[in-house]
Amino acid sequence: MDYGKESLAAHEALGGKIEISSKMKIETTDDLSIAYTPGVAAPCLAIAEDKEKARTLTIKKNTVAVISDGSAVLGLGNIGPEAALPVMEGKCLLFKEYADVDAFPLCLDTQDTEEIIETVRRVAPVFGGVNLEDISAPRCFEIESRLQDLGIPVFHDDQHGTAIVLLAALINSCRVTGRKLADLKVVINGSGSAGIAIAKLLRCVGQDENICEPCGEVILCDRKGAIHAGREDLNETKVATLAFSNPRGLSGTVQEVLVGADVFIGVSSGNILDQANIESMADSAIVFAMANPDPEICPHEAKAGGAAVVGTGRSDFSNQVNNVLAFPGIFRGALDVGAKAITPKMKVAAAYALANAVENPTKDKVIPSPLERDVADKVATAIKESYVE
Amino acid sequence: MDYGKESLAAHEALGGKIEISSKMKIETTDDLSIAYTPGVAAPCLAIAEDKEKARTLTIKKNTVAVISDGSAVLGLGNIGPEAALPVMEGKCLLFKEYADVDAFPLCLDTQDTEEIIETVRRVAPVFGGVNLEDISAPRCFEIESRLQDLGIPVFHDDQHGTAIVLLAALINSCRVTGRKLADLKVVINGSGSAGIAIAKLLRCVGQDENICEPCGEVILCDRKGAIHAGREDLNETKVATLAFSNPRGLSGTVQEVLVGADVFIGVSSGNILDQANIESMADSAIVFAMANPDPEICPHEAKAGGAAVVGTGRSDFSNQVNNVLAFPGIFRGALDVGAKAITPKMKVAAAYALANAVENPTKDKVIPSPLERDVADKVATAIKESYVE
Repeated sequence: MDYGKESLAAHEALGGKIEISSKMKIETTDDLSIAYTPGVAAPCLAIAEDKEKARTLTIKKNTVAVISDGSAVLGLGNIGPEAALPVMEGKCLLFKEYADVDAFPLCLDTQDTEEIIETVRRVAPVFGGVNLEDISAPRCFEIESRLQDLGIPVFHDDQHGTAIVLLAALINSCRVTGRKLADLKVVINGSGSAGIAIAKLLRCVGQDENICEPCGEVILCDRKGAIHAGREDLNETKVATLAFSNPRGLSGTVQEVLVGADVFIGVSSGNILDQANIESMADSAIVFAMANPDPEICPHEAKAGGAAVVGTGRSDFSNQVNNVLAFPGIFRGALDVGAKAITPKMKVAAAYALANAVENPTKDKVIPSPLERDVADKVATAIKESYVE
Repeated sequence: MDYGKESLAAHEALGGKIEISSKMKIETTDDLSIAYTPGVAAPCLAIAEDKEKARTLTIKKNTVAVISDGSAVLGLGNIGPEAALPVMEGKCLLFKEYADVDAFPLCLDTQDTEEIIETVRRVAPVFGGVNLEDISAPRCFEIESRLQDLGIPVFHDDQHGTAIVLLAALINSCRVTGRKLADLKVVINGSGSAGIAIAKLLRCVGQDENICEPCGEVILCDRKGAIHAGREDLNETKVATLAFSNPRGLSGTVQEVLVGADVFIGVSSGNILDQANIESMADSAIVFAMANPDPEICPHEAKAGGAAVVGTGRSDFSNQVNNVLAFPGIFRGALDVGAKAITPKMKVAAAYALANAVENPTKDKVIPSPLERDVADKVATAIKESYVE
């Protein structure tokens, strides 16, 4: 199937993948008087007296903003807010389909960090959470971090959604290959929002020690190879990663530092590894080649190189690492408990819930399929149970 | 029925009067690939090439933002963005119910004119129109006027919605009392957003001469009585009204300038007129006492004073002047033609469509009932026919 052609046709036919529905019918004068004037004054006054009541009396109870500036959309790059809208609508559709979360897309006509922060603050009264999406690094880090005082969860899915699903996949990959997270040497290719967030989650950055066991070693690579202290071309964000990555100060290309590693995680561009690279890794290596549409290495080639577990971002291979496994349940749980943030503890709990959703993990199934709809509920439960006010 | 009590209970039970619905079901991997990655790249790229395609491929086609800062909500005043949300949701519900327009409420956490303008500009990519709501005067005038270059209609309903419905009611009131608009002497009590917009529309301000016949005379009053050039307490907005109102420079209380007038229009506070005031007006006077919840004069008292036509803002009397008669059809029509603004010509056309929707106007029916659902379609048609690109 030519997905692009089918998708364009579907978008033309629908003119928008989501719509607004009424939860009250208006048939009589009484209906009008209850939904609108004069009756509506009563809930208005109740909220004016206590703002928190917006969480029970209005759409704030179940509504999340999906906010993007269109600067880093899928594999398409900086295509702007209008062109980003089909993706954000798609995300909203998945929120509804998977977890009955009402999500509305806001594509902003600015790519200025301060203006984005300001705008999110100004629209916040209506929402119970904010899903930041497809905002390019390093701005995405500052935007998310400075919005943590908003009183509702602000969660950049490209960072944490991806990291949570990947951690879940890694937990089960350890189970099926007889490893422990603490023993793993991990090489990550890509040091944008996803790569850095994965590194942080695997290394338990910002977590209490008792939440989860950190991976033994993580090395982050960008286009110039391993990020190490000797490089003079690193921006502030990349320099900061050295506090939790590359402890041995390795330098070299991604292919070079991959020698002897247990795990390869690719979140950048495709077709960079071959069978020999996988052969150079530890026995029964774990390979998540998530570049889209072309993975860093084809699954059959990775397996020929001796990889025990291979995952991609694609639906036509096994072990698809897909954010839809995480974000709907995360926000479902957060809305249900009125969470003010998604804490590290909640992220780890979500990853374990996701890993445990696979009853008998095998090499070809370390992660649930995106079509297993009960997963969102399991993630939501884990989020609720791990939330501490 | 205690509408306040019923409304509070309904809001508690529903937790939001509107929700998001999917227009595509996700059941297979193909569904996911068409609605989201990788297929969604095709519509994204089509829009990146031509922004205008957002109007056919995304929710921009049918979606309006209902934007408020919570500064002038119903009769409740400045209750803030969270407390304004039940009203804005109600408005969105009516948009959907009456005209199948998808409207989403944005209650802004700022009451600064510049910040509101900025924020509307930044969220505009997603919307095909903006309905400004319950923003206090005089800020509402500047906000609306400076946003007219946005490329989508920006329409402050408290101003123009009210004015259009009132003009429609007046057209039919003339028909049933044998008058012409040009002969009318009109006194308006209230010089906030609605009062000034009514005065402008009745006096054809900003219109080509051939669009509609201006009312003979309009006098605007505020709490201190008639607005006239001799007053030194007037703000800029009120001074500007003298260009099209109070040509004879009358001074005095609203009751004083009402003597001999044909029409009274009340859009401020209730209980200010009595039977004697109506008796002092021209024979067969026209009275629209729209203050809520208590009108400026009770309909039976106005009739006892000789008024021929009496309307209020309330649903329990005849001739209810209700904005829901106008805004759904106005935006329906505007979205359907991809209008960039609601022009004066479109406003007048909407008023005549609304007046003509009453087949045989009588003193007790100069305006359709808010429950007549076919009215929105008639207004939409008039909007479409009167739009010139």
